[in-house]
Amino acid sequence: MTVELDKAQAEKKLLVTDEIREAMALIRRGTDTFLIEEEFEQKLARAKMTGTPLRCKLGLDPTAPDIHIGHTVVLNKLRQLQDLGHTVIFLVGDFTAAIGDPSGRNVTRPPLSHEQIVENAQTYLNQAGLVLDLERTEVRYNSEWCNDLGSVGLIQLASRYTLARLLERDDFAKRYAEQAPIAMHELIYPLMQGYDSVALKADLELGGSDQRFNLLVGRELQRQYGQEPQCILTMPLLVGLDGQVKMSKSKHNYIGITDAPNDMFGKVMSISDALMWDWYDLLSLRGNAEIAQLKKECAEGCNPRDAKVLLAKEIVGRFHSDAAATAAEEEFNARFRAGAMPSDIPEMTVTASEGEIGIGQLLKTTGLVASTSEANRNIDQGGVKIDGQKVSDRGLKLHTGDVITVQVGKRKWAKITVA
Amino acid sequence: MTVELDKAQAEKKLLVTDEIREAMALIRRGTDTFLIEEEFEQKLARAKMTGTPLRCKLGLDPTAPDIHIGHTVVLNKLRQLQDLGHTVIFLVGDFTAAIGDPSGRNVTRPPLSHEQIVENAQTYLNQAGLVLDLERTEVRYNSEWCNDLGSVGLIQLASRYTLARLLERDDFAKRYAEQAPIAMHELIYPLMQGYDSVALKADLELGGSDQRFNLLVGRELQRQYGQEPQCILTMPLLVGLDGQVKMSKSKHNYIGITDAPNDMFGKVMSISDALMWDWYDLLSLRGNAEIAQLKKECAEGCNPRDAKVLLAKEIVGRFHSDAAATAAEEEFNARFRAGAMPSDIPEMTVTASEGEIGIGQLLKTTGLVASTSEANRNIDQGGVKIDGQKVSDRGLKLHTGDVITVQVGKRKWAKITVA
Repeated sequence: MTVELDKAQAEKKLLVTDEIREAMALIRRGTDTFLIEEEFEQKLARAKMTGTPLRCKLGLDPTAPDIHIGHTVVLNKLRQLQDLGHTVIFLVGDFTAAIGDPSGRNVTRPPLSHEQIVENAQTYLNQAGLVLDLERTEVRYNSEWCNDLGSVGLIQLASRYTLARLLERDDFAKRYAEQAPIAMHELIYPLMQGYDSVALKADLELGGSDQRFNLLVGRELQRQYGQEPQCILTMPLLVGLDGQVKMSKSKHNYIGITDAPNDMFGKVMSISDALMWDWYDLLSLRGNAEIAQLKKECAEGCNPRDAKVLLAKEIVGRFHSDAAATAAEEEFNARFRAGAMPSDIPEMTVTASEGEIGIGQLLKTTGLVASTSEANRNIDQGGVKIDGQKVSDRGLKLHTGDVITVQVGKRKWAKITVA
Repeated sequence: MTVELDKAQAEKKLLVTDEIREAMALIRRGTDTFLIEEEFEQKLARAKMTGTPLRCKLGLDPTAPDIHIGHTVVLNKLRQLQDLGHTVIFLVGDFTAAIGDPSGRNVTRPPLSHEQIVENAQTYLNQAGLVLDLERTEVRYNSEWCNDLGSVGLIQLASRYTLARLLERDDFAKRYAEQAPIAMHELIYPLMQGYDSVALKADLELGGSDQRFNLLVGRELQRQYGQEPQCILTMPLLVGLDGQVKMSKSKHNYIGITDAPNDMFGKVMSISDALMWDWYDLLSLRGNAEIAQLKKECAEGCNPRDAKVLLAKEIVGRFHSDAAATAAEEEFNARFRAGAMPSDIPEMTVTASEGEIGIGQLLKTTGLVASTSEANRNIDQGGVKIDGQKVSDRGLKLHTGDVITVQVGKRKWAKITVA
């Protein structure tokens, strides 16, 4: 009887208050996968009851120190968790990074020295510190426990998982089906990543959508090691300035977190209204209610441009300062005031041969002028502006990746992506 | 030019003398697989030229200390190699034995303590010492290098092999196809076994037929680690006394190496002539020429019984002493002299219900007597012998697994297996 009562006690659900339901809604915002929500709700309730913060883990890739705002989506989610009182853990995978890919098949994964790893991690943390409160962030290196595992520990770890389960990972399944070689250590790496969650006693692990499988391994291994399994949360990739494809440096559709305030502000102002709401979900630290209110106002006739200004200021404020954000807004208004930029500017893409295109050719191609001589005349008369600034040089070149707002005279506007 | 000359030099084959050809023929005798013979011939030639013995490895299973003569087949092959001047290495897999099967799937593989492992290995060596010259035997424990591998070394080892190659192993392929679980550590064990060959710089690895795949892994890993790959040699399983199935305790068709001299001698004498020649190949330390001569004599009319006596004496001599062998021969002759055991006795199998059968029932069932009362009469008159010894007890029970030679009166004989 006692045993049954104990069991009933253990299985008893904790009360989910409105506060917790609201926290859940915030955490859920913008996520790609969030498993298992009921479990996480209970974790939140328990954390509240016991006053013990939840441990939220993010694996950090110490090979790529420079980040753009696309990379901050997951940091933002972590910041929300911090603001809810929970602990963020950056897990630096120095153990595997130091090994690299010993089979030499993957040249993008060279072994890194310990110094390089620590330096890269520090560069990353300096950047992440713009989003997160580093005072409330735990930074751990997995060599701390992976070295101690030893060959015995690694074999015991391997015994906790079956081949079939590992081959469920999309890329493994695909390569196996295509008879492309899978070196055995590649199958061990997800187990080691999962073991990090065991060592850290993680309550939640975050990652990109492509990490879903690996995060689930951690969940499973924790269960095997007698721990309460972590929940997992994956974030989608941020769509870039073009509104078409994922933000990346190679697509030239990104905002670097070290971009100058005016550039950053202008780039945010250049995105479409639809994309703006996605960015709100993924990049803003405003609460759900506040965002819902903004959407409501726009639906009732307010200019979406005002909401975009708010977002642009929030982002510039985060990566520079509130003062810089205000200055960028003023600068932006000053540039465009005269021209009274319409709220809906036609968007077009121009292909630059060999990576560059002259301003005259660009204006002609987009139909903003009828000929290059008309383009030149307008330039000479000060009637051509790029991002609000007068063009005086007929020989100006634009380059692949440039995204610019062009004004010819008072009424002709275009947002042009140079491809 | 120099490079090409060096290469030609390196690829130059060493002279294969008649002595080496003869050694090859001896080593080849009775083998199941012997790869690659040309390579091994060259290894032998180089050993001869440089005076450096070859390193011949046998992995030892420290979980099963008690052996029967079926287990000595591979020891015999090692003894031939010792007699040719080469080094025998017993590799005690204490590293993996101490881990056992952490997934708990394989109950026949419990983790063993270091003490148990050393004790089992010593028990095995005491027995193996009856076949081998232990003075010229190196005993190594793989914990020596496997612990030092660490988790990094193990991952680097794993990177040397692909999943597809490991799944070529029959049992893995079968289980994968049948969707039976394969725990990841099971895939690591063959790599560790192969790494033992790297650590030992083995020239040859021996094993049972079921070890073929694992031995090939060692070959491949040595190549990966820049060593000359080992050759591999597998021996078939010895067919047991019944001439039907592999020798094993559970089939009751075995000769234990601690069996008493008379039992051992009588059991060898009970095997068929055809099986005798297999046993000669696998158990005798006589040279090929000597065995060929014996066969020739039998083909020319000599009684195969004489050849069987020679084999029986060799085996008893090995596990006891030459004196014991001579005594066993005399005892055997004394028992059967009176009855003049015919050279070809009919063989039959009797099924014992619930594991045992009375002597009367047995004699009736096999048709040696017409009724149990005739059986009892014969017993009372001292006319029934089992393995040359008079039966005086009407209530004698035979048991499943017994293989006996029964004589009733002067002329009725049968070799009976109780099933």
